[in-house]
Amino acid sequence: MNRAVRVAGRSDGIPGPEAFTIESSPDPACPRDGCLIEVIYTAVDPGMRGWLSREQNYLTVQDGEVMRAHGVGRILESNVAGFAVDEVVYGWLGWQQVAAVPASAILWKVDLDAAPAEYWLSILGLNGLTAWVGLRHLGALRAGETALVSTCAGGVGSIVGQLSALTGARAVGLTGDDSKAALATAEFGYEAALNYRADIDLSAAIAQTCPDGIDLFFDNTGGSIADAVFPALNVGARVIQCGTAAVARWNPVPSGPRRERDLLTKRLSWRGFIVFDHQDVFDQAFAEMKPLIAAGSLRARHEILDGLDAAPGAIRHLYSGRNAGRLIIKP
Amino acid sequence: MNRAVRVAGRSDGIPGPEAFTIESSPDPACPRDGCLIEVIYTAVDPGMRGWLSREQNYLTVQDGEVMRAHGVGRILESNVAGFAVDEVVYGWLGWQQVAAVPASAILWKVDLDAAPAEYWLSILGLNGLTAWVGLRHLGALRAGETALVSTCAGGVGSIVGQLSALTGARAVGLTGDDSKAALATAEFGYEAALNYRADIDLSAAIAQTCPDGIDLFFDNTGGSIADAVFPALNVGARVIQCGTAAVARWNPVPSGPRRERDLLTKRLSWRGFIVFDHQDVFDQAFAEMKPLIAAGSLRARHEILDGLDAAPGAIRHLYSGRNAGRLIIKP
Repeated sequence: MNRAVRVAGRSDGIPGPEAFTIESSPDPACPRDGCLIEVIYTAVDPGMRGWLSREQNYLTVQDGEVMRAHGVGRILESNVAGFAVDEVVYGWLGWQQVAAVPASAILWKVDLDAAPAEYWLSILGLNGLTAWVGLRHLGALRAGETALVSTCAGGVGSIVGQLSALTGARAVGLTGDDSKAALATAEFGYEAALNYRADIDLSAAIAQTCPDGIDLFFDNTGGSIADAVFPALNVGARVIQCGTAAVARWNPVPSGPRRERDLLTKRLSWRGFIVFDHQDVFDQAFAEMKPLIAAGSLRARHEILDGLDAAPGAIRHLYSGRNAGRLIIKP
Repeated sequence: MNRAVRVAGRSDGIPGPEAFTIESSPDPACPRDGCLIEVIYTAVDPGMRGWLSREQNYLTVQDGEVMRAHGVGRILESNVAGFAVDEVVYGWLGWQQVAAVPASAILWKVDLDAAPAEYWLSILGLNGLTAWVGLRHLGALRAGETALVSTCAGGVGSIVGQLSALTGARAVGLTGDDSKAALATAEFGYEAALNYRADIDLSAAIAQTCPDGIDLFFDNTGGSIADAVFPALNVGARVIQCGTAAVARWNPVPSGPRRERDLLTKRLSWRGFIVFDHQDVFDQAFAEMKPLIAAGSLRARHEILDGLDAAPGAIRHLYSGRNAGRLIIKP
């Protein structure tokens, strides 16, 4: 029997158990143009909140669908040339034990000799690719510059810090609690990390921690946290908008300080991106990061939830700020 | 005798005659490291308001100084290698008849065979270079795309429209009165132009006028006019921040709709620029625009004020919206 988590309805806030049902059904057949895949690990991503929202989003999972998610799995049966039984692949496998997917859902092959399976959902998965594309490709961070990263201890931020340090830049992080700030400096390459929930003048603390200003702002939060960063941006700084986690609702659109004059007088470049738009540079990212992982100089923490029963509460767990590392489900 | 317009004091609003004095003095001597230049034309620019303001600005002209301005002039005497008597040059010549300037104030040589002197203060001056850098270099406008330009009948906007059309793109303009809108479509390459002061729902009018959305927003206004444009931006659109004319004061910073989510979901690129940062591509801009001017396919209107006596009222005339084309003083 195959167990699968299906979407039960739209969520206004952060989707919790009420948004899902778990169903058992006989193992599916292998699609004529696809593969039957045993799911080893499947991912829990912040973006899933948007996928289940009523509001317009770049991706929506419909009611009744198996919850869409990236995963790593082993091919059980294949009707696709170039994919053989027992090969391990990465793709849209969903929150389920066995995935019957078309060839288009398989994104790339996984080399378990280069890194263990969980790394293909962290540094060599969307988080690592997002960090690399934002920081190295779009942000063009250079040695000697200062990068400021909001949610520095998260799945993406923990990699951005390490990549910044490996680039020869100075990384400063923002996060929501002291233990994560400690983790960011101890393990994720950050020279300093500030707790934005602490009773401090965040803007003044950022200015003090970044005496040479900020050249690259890798922003996962937006909102008032980002507002505290803008005054410290240098002329020519790049702002990479990777997420908007600090803004609870976008309907109606909330107000904030106008940025036109900052953009003009500081000649800022402010860019939003979605990692899937940059698949043309993924091979470049893999080529740079695989040896760094093998050498032990680029590391990830993983929190692996055991069993699909944990899946319906997993998005809330992610947003609670209590997870420790890349959140993965072993279905 | 040399006549010169000097700054008499700071201006809170738009500087008028009270902000200047006109003085006559014997012709200056040629500086040891510079040139003595007969000024043919000198410019009146919107930015001058900021140069005379009490507030902090990227450039300030001090009380007692000759009013700073770009100009075109003929070399009378030269102590600089590479600059000969009778050559025509472009640079910081000021509001005066004869300029004694250091070599650093001379920006480039002017070829009057390629275009008449007034064109070197419009299309081949900062306005044209600003249009070219924003639209072609930073905005990378492509054939088939739609460009929306705020203040489409201004010194920069009138060139942006023509360059857009010459690129094979569709240009739509915004301006503050009906006669300028008519001028924009008749002369400046715009397929349509909307009057943002008319009693219309500007956002709805923009959506209707741009049925395929907007790929490049060349923004000279910011503020509520720009707010009406953002909903019509396409995925992957570029926003080029060239000015903020619609926002009267930046201290304190006014509020507006937060843009983080637009940036992310539409993968926008929003970039502020100042043309002087891009001198490395000026030769490319000249090379593209000179033949277009010679062929008559890229045109400018010029309003030439005769004599320095008109200079003290010239900035007010510019902001009155009653000027017709690039405002120039023949000293």
